[in-house]
Amino acid sequence: MSTSLAAPFYRRVALLGIGLVGSSMAHAIRRGKLADHVACWSRRAETRATARRLKLCDSVHDKLTDAVAGADLVVLCAPIGANAELAQAMAPALARGATISDVGSVKQAVVRDVGPFVPEGVHFVPGHPVAGTEHSGPESGFAEMFEQRWCILTPPPGTDPAAVQRLGALWTAMGSRVEFMDPAHHDRVLAITSHLPHLIAYTIVGTVTDLEDHLRREAADAGRMVDRAEVVKFSAGGFRDFTRIAASDPVMWRDIFLNNREAVLEMLGRFSEDLAALQRAIRWGESEKLEVLFRRTRDIRRGIIQAGQAGTFKATEPDKG
Amino acid sequence: MSTSLAAPFYRRVALLGIGLVGSSMAHAIRRGKLADHVACWSRRAETRATARRLKLCDSVHDKLTDAVAGADLVVLCAPIGANAELAQAMAPALARGATISDVGSVKQAVVRDVGPFVPEGVHFVPGHPVAGTEHSGPESGFAEMFEQRWCILTPPPGTDPAAVQRLGALWTAMGSRVEFMDPAHHDRVLAITSHLPHLIAYTIVGTVTDLEDHLRREAADAGRMVDRAEVVKFSAGGFRDFTRIAASDPVMWRDIFLNNREAVLEMLGRFSEDLAALQRAIRWGESEKLEVLFRRTRDIRRGIIQAGQAGTFKATEPDKG
Repeated sequence: MSTSLAAPFYRRVALLGIGLVGSSMAHAIRRGKLADHVACWSRRAETRATARRLKLCDSVHDKLTDAVAGADLVVLCAPIGANAELAQAMAPALARGATISDVGSVKQAVVRDVGPFVPEGVHFVPGHPVAGTEHSGPESGFAEMFEQRWCILTPPPGTDPAAVQRLGALWTAMGSRVEFMDPAHHDRVLAITSHLPHLIAYTIVGTVTDLEDHLRREAADAGRMVDRAEVVKFSAGGFRDFTRIAASDPVMWRDIFLNNREAVLEMLGRFSEDLAALQRAIRWGESEKLEVLFRRTRDIRRGIIQAGQAGTFKATEPDKG
Repeated sequence: MSTSLAAPFYRRVALLGIGLVGSSMAHAIRRGKLADHVACWSRRAETRATARRLKLCDSVHDKLTDAVAGADLVVLCAPIGANAELAQAMAPALARGATISDVGSVKQAVVRDVGPFVPEGVHFVPGHPVAGTEHSGPESGFAEMFEQRWCILTPPPGTDPAAVQRLGALWTAMGSRVEFMDPAHHDRVLAITSHLPHLIAYTIVGTVTDLEDHLRREAADAGRMVDRAEVVKFSAGGFRDFTRIAASDPVMWRDIFLNNREAVLEMLGRFSEDLAALQRAIRWGESEKLEVLFRRTRDIRRGIIQAGQAGTFKATEPDKG
């Protein structure tokens, strides 16, 4: 992504929703002076009060239309299930020449939900920063969140190239690497790299929570003292890594699964087949089959490390059985 | 674990197998002067050569019986599938009063495989340090690996208390917190906290590897350049965390699953049921059910953080969709 544009890229950016991603954008935009004014709106009074207390934005609005009035960039940062309603409500207040974008993890759904409400003369450039933490809410944002992370833009065919380039320049200035994709392809790729892993993590943490009760009863029956839940105590054996993923925002993830249903169910079907095959190999003691699979999974990890996507883990980060 | 013993706790410790755990024990014992002499043996000449080159131990032996001769502590550190053979082979060379232990992630199997070969007058105290990294081999060990980690000892009923206390003192001196457990209970707890998570991680990484090929073909058909595998590129969305777990030693994990078959299959069955229920909720759009589950999984994460088992993650560690 190269551009001749210089900051500030926008006069007024309106962030609709000010949770983890919205507040991180506010921090990054204001730190870099990437817009003259950052306005925000949140549905919840408590969230707006926090945004005011933390001085996250230049202005915090109770009314959606007040936030978007005069904005040349409006970014939907609420859970994606709210997009249609927000798009419809804000449409009358949008300035001609403004750009609507979003940060949702599903892109076909945003085209479906927001597209019909985009007024004539307003640009629509959906976006998805592939970045985040397991924390949520307006206190959890930080300016560095998008650094070295991909931001995927999925402008519909025929979108004004200048509007696309301007939004790309903003993301580049926030530290991201910008990539363009077709919405359907985006949803399939992310179903694999993100939605399926989260779904699996949520499931296993749920399964283990149930088993914990079971173990406690077992221990009580055996007359043993149960000082602390054993699954927590011994979580360093691998379980812990899943709990972090499964601590992500519940409403956001509910909306992602429901709005990328087809791709998620397809990937889940493939995963279940593979799990059944592995289960069978364990039951029948097919040691060679197991070893072949386990050797193979090492390679993709090496690819990730080589691609510089591995993150920084402490050498002592344990994950042994 | 309190003890009046002072280091060195053993005259000669023999480590049978010198991979991640064996080499970490060698580092920790020698750093703390916890034994007068650390001997090691490995089946593979290449591993022995590396151990010699890195000066991991005071002596490196080609013959198993040479390593254990004169040892007052012998620790099985090879994949658990090798235990029976090693126990039988070393039995004639064991000194009276010596202690046999191990570091395997399954404890009923070690009792079954090693128990019959423990000579009269030799103590048998199985152990499991719940610590590790995704790396393997003699180069990957480090002295700090066991610090603040649990080490679970599962001595059979009637084991000499002094022998148990002495081994516990060694683990405490290596930085571990020592816990005692019945082998069957250990295997069930670890099936949940460690074996099931690893199995799921191996499966998902396998599923994704297959899907990657599929995506590449799709991209090629669409005439797009595929510069780098997209699942690697966008792995920060969640997938990456699984690849780390699934990069662990293949032979070690093959043996764990095969030797804790019953407990692993039971947990896997429960997980599959829960996954099917979640799949159904997504297909039928049961948003409330999804949200309730996702809220619940947050709590166990909080419990883990409060228990100080959460490890240190960078604030920028991303896991969003």
